[in-house]
Parts: sequence; structure tokens; C-alpha cells
Amino acid sequence: MSETIVTAAVLVIGDEILSGRTQDTNTNAIARFLGALGIDLREVRVVGDVQDEIAAALNALRARYTYVFTTGGIGPTHDDITADAVAKAFDVGIDYHPDAMALLAVRYKPGEFTEARKRMARIPFTATLVRNPVSTAPGFQIGNVFVMAGVPMIMRAMLEDIAPRLTRGQVVHAATISTRMAEGRIAAGLAKVQAGHASVAIGSYPFYREDGFGTQLVVRGRDSAAVEEAAEAVEAMVRAEGGIPERIGNQS
Amino acid sequence: MSETIVTAAVLVIGDEILSGRTQDTNTNAIARFLGALGIDLREVRVVGDVQDEIAAALNALRARYTYVFTTGGIGPTHDDITADAVAKAFDVGIDYHPDAMALLAVRYKPGEFTEARKRMARIPFTATLVRNPVSTAPGFQIGNVFVMAGVPMIMRAMLEDIAPRLTRGQVVHAATISTRMAEGRIAAGLAKVQAGHASVAIGSYPFYREDGFGTQLVVRGRDSAAVEEAAEAVEAMVRAEGGIPERIGNQS
Repeated sequence: MSETIVTAAVLVIGDEILSGRTQDTNTNAIARFLGALGIDLREVRVVGDVQDEIAAALNALRARYTYVFTTGGIGPTHDDITADAVAKAFDVGIDYHPDAMALLAVRYKPGEFTEARKRMARIPFTATLVRNPVSTAPGFQIGNVFVMAGVPMIMRAMLEDIAPRLTRGQVVHAATISTRMAEGRIAAGLAKVQAGHASVAIGSYPFYREDGFGTQLVVRGRDSAAVEEAAEAVEAMVRAEGGIPERIGNQS
Repeated sequence: MSETIVTAAVLVIGDEILSGRTQDTNTNAIARFLGALGIDLREVRVVGDVQDEIAAALNALRARYTYVFTTGGIGPTHDDITADAVAKAFDVGIDYHPDAMALLAVRYKPGEFTEARKRMARIPFTATLVRNPVSTAPGFQIGNVFVMAGVPMIMRAMLEDIAPRLTRGQVVHAATISTRMAEGRIAAGLAKVQAGHASVAIGSYPFYREDGFGTQLVVRGRDSAAVEEAAEAVEAMVRAEGGIPERIGNQS
């Protein structure tokens, strides 16, 4: 079985994330979307509304990963500079895209298709549009880069239009085992299980809740039989250490 | 009035963020913490549990910003590799830190201070400890880099210990004006207000909720009088365009 490894990065654009005003949730939504397609999200960057910063981050990421997904900065206001930054990164021109203009001309009443709204039809040369069924103004794809809105509802709708364009990888399977034991009590046993199951990655995530503490152990891998075998080894190890393993899910 | 610009970056370390299993909230907490100290968060990166990736990202960020804050990967299990990655990035050795060993020896009962738990006392040479009042195992500071736990409750406690070590900047003031108008209706007016108030940054953030849509306009700047003046100009512009401005806060 040959294995295609498809990788991705996310570039979140926006002062509002860096100031702490807005909690980014788009990255998590994209991560789950990519996971379902078997695409490995390898890196995320967040930069502010600064053209050179956006272009530099984009060029670093697009050279390194199969795909890059950007969010934010494609609206009608003066602080929406993503399209220009992307054109700069790709060293291409940018102008009003006829298809985008046509879509927006239908959406707005005569007299309401203002110059500001026309800005949303400015698309870098060679890009193709990404459909926005929520508020019409399109995203776009240029090379291996997908440029999406920052509003979560719109971003998620755009992902649906992007999905068929992506090369899929082999999906990663995951098994999660929860136990009320402290991480430090099972760390040695866990390291042994990891050493004996090299085709999977085992993560250990302690939790502290009002009703007590514990650890979640997550086994991830592309071979579902190997994941299950390692998960059972983790459960046996937890029992051997005196704990009670609870399988809480077989997703990522 | 001389102005000290203090900058920062966050480096989130962990496969669980990239897989979508965990929604990162630490970045937002750090952003707000830094905002209160007048420190500009300029960039965020998320990388997986891969030593070379962690070291490369850390070296890129620490060369560029006043401070770097990392989260994740300092626990007792095999997937906790941040301390080693940081030592590699700084090209220093790493060993059991006597103060960290002493702290942990007090925390754990005889026989429970396992080799795995001792791993949490491995600190890169030249680093100083960051106090962890929640679960004892310390973070550390090396140069301009602060290495913190990934568990949010512990991470936030560590920030309290770090705060007195930081050079503070001039706090950014913010005024937020909400209106039920679409972004595209006020974009031209907003651009004029921005052009006339160059010392502040005006952001425009559309929202779509069950009870309708609208836009939040955020004026940010270090001179509170200039922020207020620009905020009033935004309000006047919204009224002139036929909308109702609502001041919903003077924070970031």
C-alpha cells in the first residue's frame, strides 16, 4: 500500500486575534476538516494586518507544505489587505475579477454596489474563485493557497467548496483512553508502549477538572489495526499500574 | 513622552492542537495578559511535537521579538520534548536542575518521585525557573524565552510569576463601536476617518448572528485622547450614513 502524505499550514490574518479581542476558532475547524481528508496540518501562524508580514509568512508556508489555508482580511474595509498581500507574495497583479464582479452585482441593489464593496472583487491574477454561499463575496485559490474569509460561518462554507479540489491522504485513526491516574505514574509504562509500537504516535494529555485530575492517552496512526493494537497495550499498561482505563473515543 | 515598544511572540507546541483534538485557548489568554502590560503580541506559531521544528521556530521568533512565550511539552511523558528542543535551540546543555529537583522531591511521596517525574526537573543550562503553584513542576526562562506548561490553569499561573520580569510598554487603549449596518455601507466613511486619524488603527469586524448582522468597529492606539477623538469621528460617520452607533466598550 503506497502512502501519500499530504501536508498543510494555516495562516490566520488579523490584528483582532493578536490583541486578544477575538478567540480564533477557525484553526480548529480547519484542523478537523483536514483530518477527515487525511491531510496533515503541520503548522499554524498568526500575523497582523501588515502586508509584508502576510506575504513573508505566506511565502514561507507555501514553499513548504502541500496546501496553505488563510483566513481573514478579504472584506470591503481599509484594513482588508489580504488579497493585495497575496498578490505581492506571488508577484502577480491584482484587479477586479469579472466573475466576482458579476456575483456581487447581483447581490447588491442598484446604487448599493459601492466602491468599497467592489474591493471584494479584487482578485490576484491567475487565481480561481472560492464560492461564498453566505455573503457572496468570494474567496480564491492561487497555486496551492486557499484564501478564505475570517468570519467562521463563511470560512466553513468556503471549506466545502474547497474540499473537492484537494488531494486526500490516508486518514489518521485515533483511539483515546482516559484514566484518573496522574501522568507521572504511567509515563514509564507509556514510553515502553510507544517504543514497542513505532508506527503510531502516542500523546499524553493531563487534565485538571473540578471533579479531579487524570490523563488522556491518545494513540494516532494511519493503520487502524496498529492503532487498536497499541490502544489495547495502553489499556493493559494502565491496568498493570493499578488504574482503570476508559476508552472514550476512536476519533481524533 | 518617549515610547517603549515591547514585542512578543507565542509558540504553541503540541500535536493535539494541529490534529484539531484540542482548541487552543492559551494564545488568547497570553494576548490579553500582554495587552494589559502594554506588550504587543506580533506573531503566533503552532508546531507539532518535533524537536527540529520547535527549535527552528523558537530561533526565528526569539531573534525577532522582545519576548517569546511557549506553551506545552514540559510534562513527564515521552512526548514532552520542549525542554530538550529549547536547549538545542540555544545550543546549551540540559540536566536535572537542583532547585526543580528539590521542589518535586517535596511534592511526591517517597517512592513516587519516579524517573519520569524527574524528567520534569530537566532544565536547560543558564535557565531560571518559573513557579508552578498548581502542580509544582516548574517552567523556565532562558534569555528572552519563557517556557510554560500547556494545561491552561497551569499556564495562567505561570504568567503571574513571569509578569514582574517583563519590561512593560505603553498600554494600548481601545474603543469599540457596534452598529447594525453592513461593513460595505460604511467602508468608505471608515477609510476617511482612518486617513484623518493616523495615530490609531481602526479595525472593522462584521458579525452574523441569529438576530441579524452588523459590524464592530475597533479603534486602538496608545494615546487615549486620540482614540477617543477617532471613536467619536467613527460614531459621527455611522450616524451620517444613517446608522446607530453603540459604544460597547473601551477595552481591547
